[in-house]
Amino acid sequence: MSERLFAEIEKRVKLIQDYVLSETYLRRFAPDDMREAVTAYFRSGGKRLRPAVLLFACGAVGGDESKAVSAAAAVEIFHTWTLVHDDIIDRDTLRRGHPTVHERFRQESLKNGRFDDDVQAARHYGTSIAILAGDVQHGWGISLMTELTTRYGIDPAVTLKLIDTLDTYVLTTLVEGEVLDVQLSRLPIEELSEADIEDMLWKKTGALYEFCGAAGAAIGLNTPDLSHPLVTAISGFTSACGAAFQLQDDILGIVGDEKLLGKPVGSDIREGKRTVIVRSAYRKASAAQRDLLNRVLGNDHATTDEIAEATSLLVSLGGVEYAKQRAKIHLQKGSPHLERVPPSMYRDLLADWARLMTEREF
Amino acid sequence: MSERLFAEIEKRVKLIQDYVLSETYLRRFAPDDMREAVTAYFRSGGKRLRPAVLLFACGAVGGDESKAVSAAAAVEIFHTWTLVHDDIIDRDTLRRGHPTVHERFRQESLKNGRFDDDVQAARHYGTSIAILAGDVQHGWGISLMTELTTRYGIDPAVTLKLIDTLDTYVLTTLVEGEVLDVQLSRLPIEELSEADIEDMLWKKTGALYEFCGAAGAAIGLNTPDLSHPLVTAISGFTSACGAAFQLQDDILGIVGDEKLLGKPVGSDIREGKRTVIVRSAYRKASAAQRDLLNRVLGNDHATTDEIAEATSLLVSLGGVEYAKQRAKIHLQKGSPHLERVPPSMYRDLLADWARLMTEREF
Repeated sequence: MSERLFAEIEKRVKLIQDYVLSETYLRRFAPDDMREAVTAYFRSGGKRLRPAVLLFACGAVGGDESKAVSAAAAVEIFHTWTLVHDDIIDRDTLRRGHPTVHERFRQESLKNGRFDDDVQAARHYGTSIAILAGDVQHGWGISLMTELTTRYGIDPAVTLKLIDTLDTYVLTTLVEGEVLDVQLSRLPIEELSEADIEDMLWKKTGALYEFCGAAGAAIGLNTPDLSHPLVTAISGFTSACGAAFQLQDDILGIVGDEKLLGKPVGSDIREGKRTVIVRSAYRKASAAQRDLLNRVLGNDHATTDEIAEATSLLVSLGGVEYAKQRAKIHLQKGSPHLERVPPSMYRDLLADWARLMTEREF
Repeated sequence: MSERLFAEIEKRVKLIQDYVLSETYLRRFAPDDMREAVTAYFRSGGKRLRPAVLLFACGAVGGDESKAVSAAAAVEIFHTWTLVHDDIIDRDTLRRGHPTVHERFRQESLKNGRFDDDVQAARHYGTSIAILAGDVQHGWGISLMTELTTRYGIDPAVTLKLIDTLDTYVLTTLVEGEVLDVQLSRLPIEELSEADIEDMLWKKTGALYEFCGAAGAAIGLNTPDLSHPLVTAISGFTSACGAAFQLQDDILGIVGDEKLLGKPVGSDIREGKRTVIVRSAYRKASAAQRDLLNRVLGNDHATTDEIAEATSLLVSLGGVEYAKQRAKIHLQKGSPHLERVPPSMYRDLLADWARLMTEREF
């Protein structure tokens, strides 16, 4: 399955990349540091699964993909600004094999002597540039949505509905997920239910995938009615796959390959992220093992050995295996939704893409 | 003049306040910390000059103000998220007499023990909540713009044009102004031209006032054509007034009354802001006075006495007086634009409002 899927995704990645990195947009961004900051994550790659799924969804309802290209670019940019801001919040220094935006401009301003040797000022400058770069990307994404009508002739009622949905329902859900992620990491593991954790992870990831499915279908049908049976069939499917995607992300954050991921494994442990993996392993842990997990999880100063010990516990106690099962259960929940969509190459691509959610190693 | 103007502004402040703080919107925001963070600046007041000017502009072209109310709320919210993010960047701890968003959640998380006694974690939590709250407000503002059509029946072409303009041209201009503000503060004062500084201050403030005028007029005329003579007449006027507004802001940042302003005076000096005031005073300063200014401006550890000394130099060397003159010149440049608008109560209110730009003490 994978070869055809990858080829089809690759075509769309190129399309979106060219669309986004055109002079029309780039000349809007100034001064130089801002232009660099706004476009950095596009130049360094990324999976670009969200625009692909939006375009597949458009095709799957019989729509013309070429009319959805600005919306596909918009969801990628929307996702990107949330990454830029989340990287500040999660204090991550590496993404896709390159420094995160705040880290890059911290380093550069130290190198070019903008703040002499004031390391605090350089750090603050990096954070400031990253906050503003994310803000600019947010606006850019919305501007691309307006092109649905102004450039591709989609009914303005569709465009306004999608803008409103993206910038309230999806955005507030994403942010709620991110805040819960931070807040839950401070709570004792035994106090958390699986439902709390899965609610948080769906909000962080599922909501935007749900939107990608809904938006692609609504554009394809040229309808502002997001309760249209074909729209809910596809969005119900992509929503469930989004939950599976995040579960796989949590798995790769524990046992993934750093080279394939382009970011350090183990930082979820250091940040004390409350994942399904952690909860499941903790419940089966002995008192001594719980002590170890409590000591290492969320401990900024944990040593590499301690991280390795915690990692092998999370695996040996079946946490990773359990998260895999949960991911498969979400995919199974999504499947009947997709069956309500008429058969087509696009429907097959969506089904292939769903398997990628739990099989990917990058 | 002021009484009628204040009464008319006050009516609209109440309108916007009720509109924004309705349950329809508030129930979107979760968890509790996020709801508090998103609405904090609306509960603590604010001048609300931007929505008032948008509504006056709508009336001045013969439009129905009641159709522009969601757009007026939108520009206030748009302005608010830029404040929330700028407060992080400027490290301000007080606004409108209350702690800034990042400062408030830093304090609260220390009080409620969320991070035990980890002051770094509490500070980072405050910053994280403020970043996300600004993001949510940004989306909220855009969502309110969509109501122009979905709730008030304005031509969708107008709504899409205004959303695109606000989220690209205005936003990238504001952000460029903010980045330049940070970058210029690191450059030697003698290297800066007046044009550099006025370009930066217009970008920080004038661009959004220009938009308020353009948006109000475009909605009033129900036209997406932002080059319509009445639209450019009003936006040319509000753009010039915006520059005057920022010059007055810089003046109040040096010699304003902290109680009226609700924030500390002197922080512009501590941050080394490159204002017209600073440049003008510096040019007239003796070598010894320049030494003092160079030592105090941008010095985070400057004492209260040093700040007071620098302040009195900026006044005695005529810097404040010069900035007042510049503000008046901008108002004079704006005036002929307004004369192209047919006489009405609204045009008179706009003229009164322009005087408020340079006469206000809050």
